[in-house]
Amino acid sequence: MFRGTPVRHWLDAELGEIFGVAERPGPGTADLIYDQVAERLADPAFRPRALFRRFGIDVLATTDDPCDDLAAHRTLADDPGWTARVVPTFRPDRYLEPGQDGWDKAVARLGEAADTDTSGYGGYVRALEARRRHFIEHGATSADHSHADVRTDPLPEPEAARIYRAALAGTATEAETVAFRRHMLLEMGRMSSEDGLVMTLHPAVRRNHHPPTLRRHGPDTGHDIPLRAEFTDALRPLLERYGTAGGFQLALFTMDETVFSREIAPLAGFYPSVYAGAPWWFLDAPDAIRRFRRAVTETAGFSRTTGFIDDTRAFCSIPARHDMSRRLDCGFLAELVAEHRMAEDEAFETAVELVTVNPRRAFKL
Amino acid sequence: MFRGTPVRHWLDAELGEIFGVAERPGPGTADLIYDQVAERLADPAFRPRALFRRFGIDVLATTDDPCDDLAAHRTLADDPGWTARVVPTFRPDRYLEPGQDGWDKAVARLGEAADTDTSGYGGYVRALEARRRHFIEHGATSADHSHADVRTDPLPEPEAARIYRAALAGTATEAETVAFRRHMLLEMGRMSSEDGLVMTLHPAVRRNHHPPTLRRHGPDTGHDIPLRAEFTDALRPLLERYGTAGGFQLALFTMDETVFSREIAPLAGFYPSVYAGAPWWFLDAPDAIRRFRRAVTETAGFSRTTGFIDDTRAFCSIPARHDMSRRLDCGFLAELVAEHRMAEDEAFETAVELVTVNPRRAFKL
Amino acid sequence: MFRGTPVRHWLDAELGEIFGVAERPGPGTADLIYDQVAERLADPAFRPRALFRRFGIDVLATTDDPCDDLAAHRTLADDPGWTARVVPTFRPDRYLEPGQDGWDKAVARLGEAADTDTSGYGGYVRALEARRRHFIEHGATSADHSHADVRTDPLPEPEAARIYRAALAGTATEAETVAFRRHMLLEMGRMSSEDGLVMTLHPAVRRNHHPPTLRRHGPDTGHDIPLRAEFTDALRPLLERYGTAGGFQLALFTMDETVFSREIAPLAGFYPSVYAGAPWWFLDAPDAIRRFRRAVTETAGFSRTTGFIDDTRAFCSIPARHDMSRRLDCGFLAELVAEHRMAEDEAFETAVELVTVNPRRAFKL
Repeated sequence: MFRGTPVRHWLDAELGEIFGVAERPGPGTADLIYDQVAERLADPAFRPRALFRRFGIDVLATTDDPCDDLAAHRTLADDPGWTARVVPTFRPDRYLEPGQDGWDKAVARLGEAADTDTSGYGGYVRALEARRRHFIEHGATSADHSHADVRTDPLPEPEAARIYRAALAGTATEAETVAFRRHMLLEMGRMSSEDGLVMTLHPAVRRNHHPPTLRRHGPDTGHDIPLRAEFTDALRPLLERYGTAGGFQLALFTMDETVFSREIAPLAGFYPSVYAGAPWWFLDAPDAIRRFRRAVTETAGFSRTTGFIDDTRAFCSIPARHDMSRRLDCGFLAELVAEHRMAEDEAFETAVELVTVNPRRAFKL
Repeated sequence: MFRGTPVRHWLDAELGEIFGVAERPGPGTADLIYDQVAERLADPAFRPRALFRRFGIDVLATTDDPCDDLAAHRTLADDPGWTARVVPTFRPDRYLEPGQDGWDKAVARLGEAADTDTSGYGGYVRALEARRRHFIEHGATSADHSHADVRTDPLPEPEAARIYRAALAGTATEAETVAFRRHMLLEMGRMSSEDGLVMTLHPAVRRNHHPPTLRRHGPDTGHDIPLRAEFTDALRPLLERYGTAGGFQLALFTMDETVFSREIAPLAGFYPSVYAGAPWWFLDAPDAIRRFRRAVTETAGFSRTTGFIDDTRAFCSIPARHDMSRRLDCGFLAELVAEHRMAEDEAFETAVELVTVNPRRAFKL
Repeated sequence: MFRGTPVRHWLDAELGEIFGVAERPGPGTADLIYDQVAERLADPAFRPRALFRRFGIDVLATTDDPCDDLAAHRTLADDPGWTARVVPTFRPDRYLEPGQDGWDKAVARLGEAADTDTSGYGGYVRALEARRRHFIEHGATSADHSHADVRTDPLPEPEAARIYRAALAGTATEAETVAFRRHMLLEMGRMSSEDGLVMTLHPAVRRNHHPPTLRRHGPDTGHDIPLRAEFTDALRPLLERYGTAGGFQLALFTMDETVFSREIAPLAGFYPSVYAGAPWWFLDAPDAIRRFRRAVTETAGFSRTTGFIDDTRAFCSIPARHDMSRRLDCGFLAELVAEHRMAEDEAFETAVELVTVNPRRAFKL
């Protein structure tokens, strides 16, 4: 089932390099491997903090609900025995989608968390701004957004306010709630240009594609399926306003490879604020990563890419993912050197920058 | 004209490996080659059945009109001197498109073939079901569908019935006939989930792109041109109902490569019913086949692909096509082994499974 | 910034091969290199005409406004000391877009240039025809078109005339001006089929993506960003009429790679008038050129491609661009030979044809 997939590679790497498993998983080795892993997990050297140090992680960013008090982050930051950075990320999707069930309750919670009256549009915007400040105070450097598209068409403020009230009253049309969400994504860009949170976009996925599985197992259970993405026109209002503004930074992620050479690389090549995000989710794999570098580099170079980040929930796969990415980038650089498209000393320098300079700059770490 | 194309390769392989032609085709060798091929064709060893056996074909599937009585298939099945399987495939496109000329007459023929009154929607559906049974009784394992898109939006039955009557009366609008076709594609999925015919989809081609050529030479004369494809949203109603239903199987083919990694692989990775179909038509060629494997494998592995099938009408090109596909798959596997992404014994096993296990399972052979 | 980009390669090649610079550009060598280049530029051997001869350019085509009197072209053609061809290209975009600012004034200028009354649609069409004749008399072989899309839906002539008058009066709607532009692109095809100018299409770019940069620096300042392209349906009215007409030739360029295998290669494979244009703009780079050949060749072969052309405004980059393209094509041919997909003698012949036969035929040079 997993042959030729990164899941297989990650599994091999986790078992072999972290847990010291030498046997190939199979019916004849399953019990042996289970026992070996179980024994290791009981060892204090395999506790999460110990592994975190062993993995050499500089920064780990969680994604968090804007209403989260971030107490766990504060606890960790205050812990004298803990030196690595674990920072929150502002993830406001559900608060920006009046068309989704439970939006009215979410907005009410937002008002409580921000101690602000969100019965009107102005208070709602102020509440979002306040929660962003709360996140920044707790170390956040980014705000992460994932909607069906990334259109950023502005609404006149009275129209936004009118739709907001209608949505709370349950009378907004679908077209209105979509228009409001797009307007609010632009607003998120405005706030990022003001408070400095890097804006990261992961659009164009049909979440919960299979409703029966959603009902039985809940969201994030393997049936989110990508859609076509469009950035050129969608982001134009946002980039017209903030694309060349100092301090504003935007990282574009996609699972639609067609935009790599057609839209993302040209946008990152012109706008000093735009970074081409690392291949993500289904594309976080050897051949896809190579396609990404080949599609993006000729237009945007290396400096306009974020460098690799993973978004795994499988903690033990982190070393394997970063190791794989580094090997692939080095392989790509080696090809350029072998074809006399880059000098060897430049390739050595770029290989290091891609894991040091680039992600620190792109995500303001 | 043909350098670098698979047509050239197939022609070389056919002439050389089947007809023993050693000369390169050209003005100086044309007569010689013609005579040599003509002489061979007169030899009983070059009769279709002899070549069929020589080619080592296990199963050949024709595509047939739902009204076909399949007498030829029965004759062949009853022939004691014939052991290979030649099975029909249910291809109902024209009966599902009320917007096409001649649909009313087609539906009348369908009623006659099924001995069912098709003046109303209920009888029409029963007639389709009856003809599918007829095909299954004659060995069919698949129903093949090719429309401009694969949307499967359901209509309430009374609305479907109303449009059906309007279409027969010639008063249905274009929007109605499109809605009806999409509803009927969902109905075909329901029938597949009930009678077990594998549903295969080959969408998104503008047929008869050049009307003057259509008028002069008829359909299937080289001017069908691909269109953008979309599967994620289009198939959602179908997959919501039958995507995880036991026995339902769906093979997705495309000439729009953009959906390989974006839509087909993720769908095949989640839904146990969905298979990624082999590269088809313009994509049945070395570089395209490599792109397919590289785009699909990292998400869906090998087991969720159908394995190679060809849809040629050039009988003598069958060995060359399958040989080429096997060499390309083995080359891809060898790359994975060389890059330490797969063990050698696994690659050997997978190479065999791709031409044995996979197509038999995907098409219920 | 430029590592891995063709800009870097062109710069290296220009400095090294044209100006004899041996040092790598950097803070420590900037002054030295500047002085060396400045010294060379003062040398008569580095005057434009001398470089033109040294570069071995057979034909250079400018793109020109339809109202241009082409006096410079006439002067050059009449110069006994100048033997290479420098030809104009008819570029009527702005005259076909009533939705753009200044269209009414442009049309008035067109009338003056053609000495034709353009207050009505008939005169406008006759003026365009007259200016095309003027270009042909001055050596033009092509008409170049770049709009947001390439739809060619016809309007009935009275409707075209009505929209024309409304547009002059400033009362045409956006939908009407778009419909008019698409109708006029079809008209350009008709004229090409009559006067023989090769029709070249470079669609699907959002021009002046960043309005503040447009206001400050003007157009063509680095912020044109590609859009999705669509050719199959868009060109159908044009190709229905002229696609198989003797003398009509159409070259399709794109920055949306998705259409290479899906639309352009199948169109070029069927229509004798259609040529797949060389990779253009952001795609005029090694990996993109390889992707182009791999995506197009298997369907359309080599003979249906235009061969390389550049559209640079950086004069000194011309040798580097053509040299790079030739090396890449030869590398692609070598791969086909190494994989036994082409014989060596055929590869040698094709390598030469791609820089001699193909562009001369495709652009009627």
